[in-house]
Amino acid sequence: MTDSPEGTPAAENAAPHAVSRRRLFGAVGAGAVLAGAGAVIGRVTADENSGTDHADVVAFRGEHQAGITTPAQDRMHFVAFDVTTKSRDELITLLQTWTAMAERMTAGQEATEDGATGDGPYAPPSDTGEALDLAPSQLTLTIGFGPSLFDDRFGLADKKPAALLDLPHFRADNLDPNRSGGDIAIQACANDPQVAVHAIRNLARVAFGTASVKWSQLGFGRTSSTSTTQATPRNLFGFKDGTANIKAEDPNALAQHVWVDPTDDQAWMAGGSFLVARRIRMLIEQWDRAVLKEQEAVIGRSKRSGAPLGAKDEFDELDLDSKMGHDFVIPEDSHVRLASAEELGGIQILRRGYNFTDGSDGFGHLDAGLFFVAYCRNPVEQFVPMQQNLSRHDALNEYIQHVGSAVFACPGGLADGKDWSSQLFT
Amino acid sequence: MTDSPEGTPAAENAAPHAVSRRRLFGAVGAGAVLAGAGAVIGRVTADENSGTDHADVVAFRGEHQAGITTPAQDRMHFVAFDVTTKSRDELITLLQTWTAMAERMTAGQEATEDGATGDGPYAPPSDTGEALDLAPSQLTLTIGFGPSLFDDRFGLADKKPAALLDLPHFRADNLDPNRSGGDIAIQACANDPQVAVHAIRNLARVAFGTASVKWSQLGFGRTSSTSTTQATPRNLFGFKDGTANIKAEDPNALAQHVWVDPTDDQAWMAGGSFLVARRIRMLIEQWDRAVLKEQEAVIGRSKRSGAPLGAKDEFDELDLDSKMGHDFVIPEDSHVRLASAEELGGIQILRRGYNFTDGSDGFGHLDAGLFFVAYCRNPVEQFVPMQQNLSRHDALNEYIQHVGSAVFACPGGLADGKDWSSQLFT
Repeated sequence: MTDSPEGTPAAENAAPHAVSRRRLFGAVGAGAVLAGAGAVIGRVTADENSGTDHADVVAFRGEHQAGITTPAQDRMHFVAFDVTTKSRDELITLLQTWTAMAERMTAGQEATEDGATGDGPYAPPSDTGEALDLAPSQLTLTIGFGPSLFDDRFGLADKKPAALLDLPHFRADNLDPNRSGGDIAIQACANDPQVAVHAIRNLARVAFGTASVKWSQLGFGRTSSTSTTQATPRNLFGFKDGTANIKAEDPNALAQHVWVDPTDDQAWMAGGSFLVARRIRMLIEQWDRAVLKEQEAVIGRSKRSGAPLGAKDEFDELDLDSKMGHDFVIPEDSHVRLASAEELGGIQILRRGYNFTDGSDGFGHLDAGLFFVAYCRNPVEQFVPMQQNLSRHDALNEYIQHVGSAVFACPGGLADGKDWSSQLFT
Repeated sequence: MTDSPEGTPAAENAAPHAVSRRRLFGAVGAGAVLAGAGAVIGRVTADENSGTDHADVVAFRGEHQAGITTPAQDRMHFVAFDVTTKSRDELITLLQTWTAMAERMTAGQEATEDGATGDGPYAPPSDTGEALDLAPSQLTLTIGFGPSLFDDRFGLADKKPAALLDLPHFRADNLDPNRSGGDIAIQACANDPQVAVHAIRNLARVAFGTASVKWSQLGFGRTSSTSTTQATPRNLFGFKDGTANIKAEDPNALAQHVWVDPTDDQAWMAGGSFLVARRIRMLIEQWDRAVLKEQEAVIGRSKRSGAPLGAKDEFDELDLDSKMGHDFVIPEDSHVRLASAEELGGIQILRRGYNFTDGSDGFGHLDAGLFFVAYCRNPVEQFVPMQQNLSRHDALNEYIQHVGSAVFACPGGLADGKDWSSQLFT
């Protein structure tokens, strides 16, 4: 059984009825390339099974990878792999296979042409099936390569970007090696978590014998906006998070702080970005016992409105000089000051984090926090000094603990005919 | 700062604009009581921050607790508590406090009247704030009491329902005590996971010193329908799950199989139900290597359509007698046959489970599966014989492992003026 192009066109403002993954097939291929990766190119309403999310398709190919400046989807499933083969050819084949699957799944199709039932009764289905009735849900799949991939196994040592270094130890880091590092990362974001989990699960499955899951993290709710079209969400400290984030609508900021320029480093990273992931456990019980004034002083913003202390509206500029008596209105050890571009000599990063809760910590509390994901042009020059400043001085450190850490080099987007091995292995 | 009844009425078909938790206040109290617990009584569209979910309010009070026959929401956060106080009065006070908070939160309000910022700068906020801008999202909060609560600590021994027994060991159970049992359970279901997590987190927080979190589980996607208005979702084996589930629209089945009759057992359980929770790890890597014919034979249904083997449509009746040669078309060890009312002498339960994925298992695989939640009138007469049959004969056992288990007695719904201590402690 193969997919047939029987679908309604997935055009903007298409009729609002359920469109299954199969029926969507054939409608999005060409449009996707034209619109460029990250652009929302199709809009259909969700199938009943997908809950209530709208079901846009985000273009897979383009100048940059989707999932970076794409308006942050509601849910995330993130996975880091260890490559288990020592064969360069097997790794290349996996990256090619992954690309074909990823392109199909982001278009709302089954992972392979045969799909969940088309291989016949005597073969294992080549799609696992749990997203069969679900809408595309703006799925994006973003790949990155960790420092460890550039050792002597695959002949990649001379391709290692100078900026792709294991992050240094930061003060108070309490990293779990089982939640850190990895040779390859894939970030799946979607408005339906089952679509994100399905994608990661199918990519992990086909990697059997070549790469295995080192760690994975489900993020239940976005805690960053990456577009001016989005309201600012709240983290589990109850504060609006990422008000001052770089937005997709600011191409100058993206060029300066997010996208790697071909002259920066390795040519294969042109149009790419570096991904920093930090699993930040929030000590919510301690936080919840802090008085409002303390919470707002720690963050440097009003809890309800998100406005900087001393200001009225969320998007008012930080006034870092204003004083009340001898003290700064926005305290010297407040998070918003220490993380500000003003404080950091102009450093900015694109944040794309998610709230998580992973059961209990075994001591009567929820294991909850922020899965911090950020993109930047050079982690050594951006994330590292920022985190050094924060780890040394941030009043928030009393209430958080960094327990996982990883950094990955994400190449640029794919032109037609290219795949996830093209940039790195040629 | 206190809430004021400034809101737009949260009536069915209210104007589709954003309604914050605060502005909704005052509009839903009376309507909720009239409509009965579990009924959807308000409909507003979601605030931008809540993603794309519709923002209905489900009535908190009524004959039965909401969250049982309420059309299954998309996401769940489930928590089991150990009671840490030995004081009966403190426990009663906690249940009263929880009730007031739960009623507010399900109506889309902050957890307390003072809320996230109204206690003043020198008090810890009495709402943690992360749901401030989010719509009600059909939040339901359902409470249940575990067998261990009825020991000698609180004078409840003679209130213990005869049907509330720790579940027996089933064949191949591999239970983790840290994911099993508990004195009190609260099930939070909502279409926005942040609303569910916020509710559990605030209830856990206020319990400090009286009860502590024993375990909790996030379910990212519903895998049951509890209403004929809902399409059947798929589990992580890629199959439609719960096709034959009891539906809210079948009051006779509910009366027979779900709701406790006052003459059944303890009078305080009238209108209540028993909740069985099982964390079922799915060995998805083994499953994914099984051929389609084997998968369909194990389940007893077609993968794509969900139809019983030998039938055409998902909702066609099981033909358990039909044979192909010497073999039954629906195999003798198939899950659908063994779990069927026909096979079990008429036993049925109301399933309300959720898919989960909790990172990696440490062996290169995703830790994923089904958080099985079911409601029944008598677990000893319904769940136990069903699970004994399944654990002994079900072909599915090769691909799953039960790793967590709990049972709770959930009282009936609350009349006006009553709280979660009223039924059990009077």
